[in-house]
Amino acid sequence: MIIVIQCKDQVGLVGSISTILAKHQLNIVSMREHVDKAENIFFVRLQVEDGDDTGLEATLKEVLPEGATISVNPIPHKKVVVLVTKEYHCLADILIRNFFNTLGASVQCVIGNHATLQDICQRFDMPFYHIPHEQPSKAEFEQKLTDVIDQYSPDYLVLAKFMRILSPGFVTKFPMRVINIHHSFLPAFIGANPYRQAFERGVKLIGATAHFVSNELDEGPIIAQQIIPVNHSFTATDMVKAGQEIESSVLANALKLVFEDRVFVYGNKTVVFS
Amino acid sequence: MIIVIQCKDQVGLVGSISTILAKHQLNIVSMREHVDKAENIFFVRLQVEDGDDTGLEATLKEVLPEGATISVNPIPHKKVVVLVTKEYHCLADILIRNFFNTLGASVQCVIGNHATLQDICQRFDMPFYHIPHEQPSKAEFEQKLTDVIDQYSPDYLVLAKFMRILSPGFVTKFPMRVINIHHSFLPAFIGANPYRQAFERGVKLIGATAHFVSNELDEGPIIAQQIIPVNHSFTATDMVKAGQEIESSVLANALKLVFEDRVFVYGNKTVVFS
Amino acid sequence: MIIVIQCKDQVGLVGSISTILAKHQLNIVSMREHVDKAENIFFVRLQVEDGDDTGLEATLKEVLPEGATISVNPIPHKKVVVLVTKEYHCLADILIRNFFNTLGASVQCVIGNHATLQDICQRFDMPFYHIPHEQPSKAEFEQKLTDVIDQYSPDYLVLAKFMRILSPGFVTKFPMRVINIHHSFLPAFIGANPYRQAFERGVKLIGATAHFVSNELDEGPIIAQQIIPVNHSFTATDMVKAGQEIESSVLANALKLVFEDRVFVYGNKTVVFS
Amino acid sequence: MIIVIQCKDQVGLVGSISTILAKHQLNIVSMREHVDKAENIFFVRLQVEDGDDTGLEATLKEVLPEGATISVNPIPHKKVVVLVTKEYHCLADILIRNFFNTLGASVQCVIGNHATLQDICQRFDMPFYHIPHEQPSKAEFEQKLTDVIDQYSPDYLVLAKFMRILSPGFVTKFPMRVINIHHSFLPAFIGANPYRQAFERGVKLIGATAHFVSNELDEGPIIAQQIIPVNHSFTATDMVKAGQEIESSVLANALKLVFEDRVFVYGNKTVVFS
Repeated sequence: MIIVIQCKDQVGLVGSISTILAKHQLNIVSMREHVDKAENIFFVRLQVEDGDDTGLEATLKEVLPEGATISVNPIPHKKVVVLVTKEYHCLADILIRNFFNTLGASVQCVIGNHATLQDICQRFDMPFYHIPHEQPSKAEFEQKLTDVIDQYSPDYLVLAKFMRILSPGFVTKFPMRVINIHHSFLPAFIGANPYRQAFERGVKLIGATAHFVSNELDEGPIIAQQIIPVNHSFTATDMVKAGQEIESSVLANALKLVFEDRVFVYGNKTVVFS
Repeated sequence: MIIVIQCKDQVGLVGSISTILAKHQLNIVSMREHVDKAENIFFVRLQVEDGDDTGLEATLKEVLPEGATISVNPIPHKKVVVLVTKEYHCLADILIRNFFNTLGASVQCVIGNHATLQDICQRFDMPFYHIPHEQPSKAEFEQKLTDVIDQYSPDYLVLAKFMRILSPGFVTKFPMRVINIHHSFLPAFIGANPYRQAFERGVKLIGATAHFVSNELDEGPIIAQQIIPVNHSFTATDMVKAGQEIESSVLANALKLVFEDRVFVYGNKTVVFS
Repeated sequence: MIIVIQCKDQVGLVGSISTILAKHQLNIVSMREHVDKAENIFFVRLQVEDGDDTGLEATLKEVLPEGATISVNPIPHKKVVVLVTKEYHCLADILIRNFFNTLGASVQCVIGNHATLQDICQRFDMPFYHIPHEQPSKAEFEQKLTDVIDQYSPDYLVLAKFMRILSPGFVTKFPMRVINIHHSFLPAFIGANPYRQAFERGVKLIGATAHFVSNELDEGPIIAQQIIPVNHSFTATDMVKAGQEIESSVLANALKLVFEDRVFVYGNKTVVFS
Repeated sequence: MIIVIQCKDQVGLVGSISTILAKHQLNIVSMREHVDKAENIFFVRLQVEDGDDTGLEATLKEVLPEGATISVNPIPHKKVVVLVTKEYHCLADILIRNFFNTLGASVQCVIGNHATLQDICQRFDMPFYHIPHEQPSKAEFEQKLTDVIDQYSPDYLVLAKFMRILSPGFVTKFPMRVINIHHSFLPAFIGANPYRQAFERGVKLIGATAHFVSNELDEGPIIAQQIIPVNHSFTATDMVKAGQEIESSVLANALKLVFEDRVFVYGNKTVVFS
């Protein structure tokens, strides 16, 4: 059983929480705790076993500061919808893990603004919706996305190389529930064509960043980052290929962390108990 | 203030400990906890602030299982003696950090079985003892080492590329208090000339390992490891040079972890709250 | 066009080779060269363009030392047969790349000593042969493997977590054409259960090694290696999972290097022009 | 002997060069070559042995395109002047390597705009000049720097955490001969306080970049970059400390590459034959 709590910090929190757990005969198997001293916020993730969690959340609420976020035994197997454009590498990695039940979540469907990835989805019996972005308006495009998404009530949306910018209105519907893979080492190379930018700049490392989507372009809270060395012999195209190798890896890692309730968001930052 | 505890695991340990801390008005700033389920051992490292630690250790002892190791506010600035042979890179790194007070410990003296590194020590006003290993017997060599070491009552001995194997009798005097840097990615290439072995084997990565010294050659508990890529263009000598770059880095990292009381030893393993 | 040459070293080789290329109006786009001074062997890989390669190999032979290995425009798209047992991650990665034509080779079929991975192969219309290893004798098992393999005349066999040891007789049929992924940082943890060994040893990094198969267990020439950090919180099972993440990555990287004719083997080592 | 050539690309360059070397009985021990197809520039670094280089440069000039840069046996042991402010880690690393003759260059003197690092320099008998930046004008400050530098005719200036921005006029005097260590993963976090910026942004990796200084702030050609992972438990100060560990390492690496004539600059990029 997993328990995650985020609240204002105060003296004695760990004591109060663990006393309550002991009363419920819940044995702490592992515990990760962090206090942001500057912001005065307390974060804890507990893995407990045995015991009885009846009424646990209410009892915890009584001893914790007002406004505490408490999640006892969060949904163990999240539902996700994946949005894609044409690049296959991140989607294929997710489909494989989903197929072999090692994703830690369950993919409900895939939506593509191009039809390119329909075939690979069908091979895994995965529903695929082709919703072209060429619609009378962006609002209509996003309405069609929403219509499909709403059928599945997903816990998270995963943008697996989805190359369209979503409107604030859309993003607001899924606060800190949209996860994107950005093909650069943010905050370097924000926006379009980061590999071309990296090539022009002559960098010696390129990166990839998995982050929650907020309404500032490429500015949401970062979950995970990874880099790969490059050199003068790389063309811009070679950099794209090298980058793809880490994009799927860093996205898979970020998803695992989120699906295991190891990621807390506050302000524009994350606490990650990896 | 730092508190480190290692004991048999049982239900309610975190609750008992944090309740006692709250009674002392000690606020938990950070806490790292681990339970080895297979061995049933509980490890915790707490950083607390404010409050009053009078009688804390005794109070903790009452609620913890028999045999618990409790250290309240361990020596904040350890004393160390460094043993060297001829290679300068690890020693120089330690001397520099010591000189600028960023080592997290205080180097008392350096002992060399060669005189090569006397000059660099003198430049930092660091006492240097030249004790050649060519003595009538190994026992006499080690007795001379012990005579010098005993003058300084160090908390730790650091073997900074000390190329002599110490006898079980010597090591036993400093249980889990001798830290060695081994120039390979243990357990690969145990023993002499690991870089030559690595070269012959044609590996594509070479490593360095910082570990506590036990009485099995290169077999003590590992604290930290690091690697660096190599390729076909590296001669055995090039591998030595590449390895040296990470040897000083991984040793410095391991020392920092040990000096900050972040490393627990049990059996032949470590728990490292990095 | 790719040209790879391996021969005894002597003065003027680069001059002789490049003069001949110039006569054929072949422009050198990129060139990687290495001389193993100890063994006195010269290696070169040239990428050339334009020009005419008629008779090029014969002309080169005339100026190169006796015994030179010359390959002008080696098979651009190798044929491979993949052998598997039960673990899906390396195979799935290969199937995906093969499906999207980014493997740099063409997978002809997959052979499993278990039927576990038949389904994933069928989803990609990939022929799968289930050849159980429980046969009257190892010789009969390997004969059945050979019978299937021979139908496809592959350039390389890829052991993508194939958990049976092949006999010298079998390996000899495919000299330096069998590529294996070993789930450890060779030469540490040779043989069975490397992750269990790594767990017992308490290492802080685990690795994976892609290598050519020779007749010494886990001793063939190494192509590529990679590592991933682990810590005390990892069970042996967690180490297996962490290792799998790099196994597919390091195997994919090694295959790319081999398929692009960037890997030379000599003795028990490789030259890799990555 | 090292030979480095940079010129317009054309067919047959390698052939022409190696034919000339063969005539001089110069045996090619290692050769690294690169063609930037987009810019049509050819780069080569040759290590040759035996033979006779009398008149070699002139002979090469005859066969190479106009404007070729040829350097036969470049200064094997460069002279450098180091500029610092208050932080010790990069300077100390350089002084240690210089003292043990492993820097690949010879440090002539150190100039600090603060006196903080005078002591460490004196311990290594290294001339130290304290030139405060509080001068009537920046021009006067830079004139005083120049006066000292000119005494030593250095091949390179190394900014080892020198926290003043040099004027275009000053930089122009040392074209592509000023090497800086920037404490971020450029182009992220240009300008002041990059660690504070990184902390605010909540990044999961921080970096350091060694680059040639041009007249655009933090925009010169990049030589080497390196990163280190960080997490939510790092304060901005912790990030500074973590960053310092890689700053000295990446600067040392970049200096080694430059001093061994492995770095070519063109436009705002480098070719690095590492």
